[in-house]
Amino acid sequence: MRTISSKDNKIFRLCQQLSHKKYRDKLGLYLIEGENLLEEAVKNGAEIKTVLARPDYGGSFFGMEERAFFLDGRLFEQLSQTETSQGIMAIVEKPKLSWEGFKNIDGGNFIVLDRLQDPGNIGTIIRTADAAGYKLAIVMKGTADVFSPKAVRAATGSLFRMPVVFMDSAHELAEFTRAAGKKLVATCFDTDRYYYDEDLKKNIALIIGNEGNGISGELIEGSDVKIKIPMYGNIESLNASVAAGILMYEAVRP
Amino acid sequence: MRTISSKDNKIFRLCQQLSHKKYRDKLGLYLIEGENLLEEAVKNGAEIKTVLARPDYGGSFFGMEERAFFLDGRLFEQLSQTETSQGIMAIVEKPKLSWEGFKNIDGGNFIVLDRLQDPGNIGTIIRTADAAGYKLAIVMKGTADVFSPKAVRAATGSLFRMPVVFMDSAHELAEFTRAAGKKLVATCFDTDRYYYDEDLKKNIALIIGNEGNGISGELIEGSDVKIKIPMYGNIESLNASVAAGILMYEAVRP
Repeated sequence: MRTISSKDNKIFRLCQQLSHKKYRDKLGLYLIEGENLLEEAVKNGAEIKTVLARPDYGGSFFGMEERAFFLDGRLFEQLSQTETSQGIMAIVEKPKLSWEGFKNIDGGNFIVLDRLQDPGNIGTIIRTADAAGYKLAIVMKGTADVFSPKAVRAATGSLFRMPVVFMDSAHELAEFTRAAGKKLVATCFDTDRYYYDEDLKKNIALIIGNEGNGISGELIEGSDVKIKIPMYGNIESLNASVAAGILMYEAVRP
Repeated sequence: MRTISSKDNKIFRLCQQLSHKKYRDKLGLYLIEGENLLEEAVKNGAEIKTVLARPDYGGSFFGMEERAFFLDGRLFEQLSQTETSQGIMAIVEKPKLSWEGFKNIDGGNFIVLDRLQDPGNIGTIIRTADAAGYKLAIVMKGTADVFSPKAVRAATGSLFRMPVVFMDSAHELAEFTRAAGKKLVATCFDTDRYYYDEDLKKNIALIIGNEGNGISGELIEGSDVKIKIPMYGNIESLNASVAAGILMYEAVRP
C-alpha cells in the first residue's frame, strides 16, 4: 500500500476540504472515521471512494485494500476528529436520492428534521429512527449538515441504511406527505392530545423541531395531528433526541 | 458591584479549580453558566455562593446582586465553557444527601447511572428522569462527574430538583433498593422479555449502563427484572439517553 506523506497530496487536501459543509455539498462526498463505521459502510453497500489508514493501524480493511492508502501519522491527526483515533478513515459518496421514490412506501413511518442544529441530535435521531423501523429521514432546509463528522459518528452506521432526502419548504413537505399517504405529526404546546392518545404506529411523518425553538409555525399549522409529551415538575422540554426516541418507539410497542 | 480584574483574585482562582473534578469533590462546589441556569438555581433553592458577571451582562441577577461581582471580560472568557457565553456564571454548593433519606419513597422510581462516561448523556438522563417524575438518581462508582460543566448544562436545571446520591458497589445498591422496596431493572441482551412486557410504572430502580459496554455483569446478576428494547435492522444499540427516555416514559404512559 502506498503511503501519503505530503500535505500537498490531492487526497489529503480533499479530506481537508471535506471537513467543511460547503465542499461536502459541492463534491457529494463525506468522511467517516473508525473501524466500526468502515465495517458498517462496507456491509451496507455504501460507495467508498478511498480508505486512509495511519501506518500503525492494526484493524481490518474489510476488503477495501485496493482503494486504501497509508497516511503519515502527523497528517492523519490533522484530519482526525476524534480524541483517540483508531487510525482509519474513508471518503464516502453521499447517496443521491429523490423523494419521488418514497411515495409508495405503504405503512412505513418517516422522520422529519426541522432545523435541528446539534449534530449529535441529528445523528442520534437517525440512529433511533433506524432502530424503530422508520423508512425515511426528511431534512428540512436550515437543519445542520447530516453528513458532518459529529452527526455521522452519532448515527453509528444508520446513515448507510436510512435514506435521507432534503426539502426546502413546508409546502413541498405537505405535498409529498399527502402523495405518500402519511399523516404529518407535530409536537407543540398548543394541543390537548398526548402522544399516547394518537396512533403513531404507521403512515406518519413525525416532525422533530429545533432544539431551542421547536417546530416552525408554518409546519405546525400544516400538520394533521398535534401532540404533546407530558412532563412533571417545572421542566419545559425534553432533549430533542429523547423526545424523538419516545415518540418513534410508539411504532415499536405492541 | 465590585469588579474582579486580577488573575490572582481568590474567587477567580476558585472558579479555575472548579473546572477539575478533583476540586469539585474536595470543595463540594460546582459552576453553573447562563441566565436560565441561574434562574433555575434560584427558583429551586440551590445554595448559590457567588455570582460572576461579565461587565457587559444585560440579564437578570434574580435577587442575587448582593453576592455578585463583575469579572473582567478577558478573565470571564477563560472560565466560560460555552461558545457564545451570555456573560453570567455562579458557584453553587453541591447538596449533601445520604440515601438513608430515600428509603421511604412509596411508589416513586429511581434511575441508576452505571459508569456512564458521556457528560451529555448523564445530564440528559437526569433531565428526562425529572420530566418523567422519577424521584432519585443513584450514581454508581466509575460514572463521570454529574457536576461537570457539560453534564450540568445538559441537565438544564434538573440537577437543582433531582436528588443525587452516590454508591460504591452492587452490594450497596441491592441493599438500598431492597430496603426501599424497589425492583432493580436491568436492560441486557440475555432475556426474552421486552420492556413493555414488564410493569415499569412504579417502585423500580432502572439501571442505565455504560455507553460502550452496557451494565456491569454484577449489577445484571443482582437485578430483579431483565428487559430488552427491540430494534429493527442491524442496529446493535440505542444511544444511552434515548434508551433511558423510552424506558422512563413507561412510567408516564397511562
